[in-house]
Amino acid sequence: MDAYEAILTRRSTRKYKADPVAPEILQKVVEAGRYAPSGGNNQTNHFLVVQSPDVAEKLVGLAEAAFAKMEADENTYPSLRNSILASKKGGYVFTYRAPVLIVVANRKDYGNNMADAVAAVENMMIAANALDLGSCYINQLYWLNEEPSLLAALRNLGLKEDERVYASMALGYAATGDGLPSRKPLERKGNEVTFL
Amino acid sequence: MDAYEAILTRRSTRKYKADPVAPEILQKVVEAGRYAPSGGNNQTNHFLVVQSPDVAEKLVGLAEAAFAKMEADENTYPSLRNSILASKKGGYVFTYRAPVLIVVANRKDYGNNMADAVAAVENMMIAANALDLGSCYINQLYWLNEEPSLLAALRNLGLKEDERVYASMALGYAATGDGLPSRKPLERKGNEVTFL
Repeated sequence: MDAYEAILTRRSTRKYKADPVAPEILQKVVEAGRYAPSGGNNQTNHFLVVQSPDVAEKLVGLAEAAFAKMEADENTYPSLRNSILASKKGGYVFTYRAPVLIVVANRKDYGNNMADAVAAVENMMIAANALDLGSCYINQLYWLNEEPSLLAALRNLGLKEDERVYASMALGYAATGDGLPSRKPLERKGNEVTFL
Repeated sequence: MDAYEAILTRRSTRKYKADPVAPEILQKVVEAGRYAPSGGNNQTNHFLVVQSPDVAEKLVGLAEAAFAKMEADENTYPSLRNSILASKKGGYVFTYRAPVLIVVANRKDYGNNMADAVAAVENMMIAANALDLGSCYINQLYWLNEEPSLLAALRNLGLKEDERVYASMALGYAATGDGLPSRKPLERKGNEVTFL
């Protein structure tokens, strides 16, 4: 797919087929993330590519339990507030049950950790779209990146002591008739531009 | 250019020709940024597209003066330290004198400000590469996003009271023989991947 088309037709997919993503396709998506720029070319992103349903389920349960203990009021960031309220009700699944969850961690004491992780996720979402895969940016593990239960679980999976999660994404085939992500025109609300 | 190729061959360009970027090309690059995902589809990025050499020169001078007043030691983030030390010496130009500087601001009190701005810049850098333009991620205005002199100057240019800069980039034709960005293989140092 043409680069410009892949950028303009990328949309957030929130419903996925159970079909797995073939290893060579998944490798291609992750490779796109590894080619994102990094501060001083440090390349310290650490990609945890979760395909195991058991591992994903464990993270989903820990996140729900952690959110359920948090409080939200009208000053809470709306998406975080939704996660908290949905978790208190029960049955909250932050991964949309996508077959793949890609978690991007980086060093806690590194000034460009957040920017490097986000740039990698954006690259992976564009590559996913070009490969007819759906994806969705996921904030929940970033919001909970100091939560002890999740830190312990992620360390069990390979997260290093000095690393924290800064961005993540769901990935898989969209649960639409043709298995393609929605590529309807984007509803334009803002994103103001000032030319100088 | 193919999407995957555009992602894998994007490199940081730090030397630019003086040639301006045609308005329709610049519009295309900014449009790529506007199509980046945003938290809750808020679309609150504000793109300040600086083409005027006078405006760029003003920002360069203010940034140099601000960095020159700061102190750096061995605990300072290395790139920031470089900016401080170079500014104390004098003649520090954070824009690489690229013909275009794109500044992405967002609301200070919005939880996804940084992620939304970085995703937009990444989209614009990939689009730029597909259009044979060079680009480079620029952190300096983010580091100085509470500096009063720069806030005042940016507000003069259209930045709103509640907005701050979270990411920016240089854009233009690379000062190489063929005017193309360097697309040499990336030197691989890190970016570890753990499949689970």
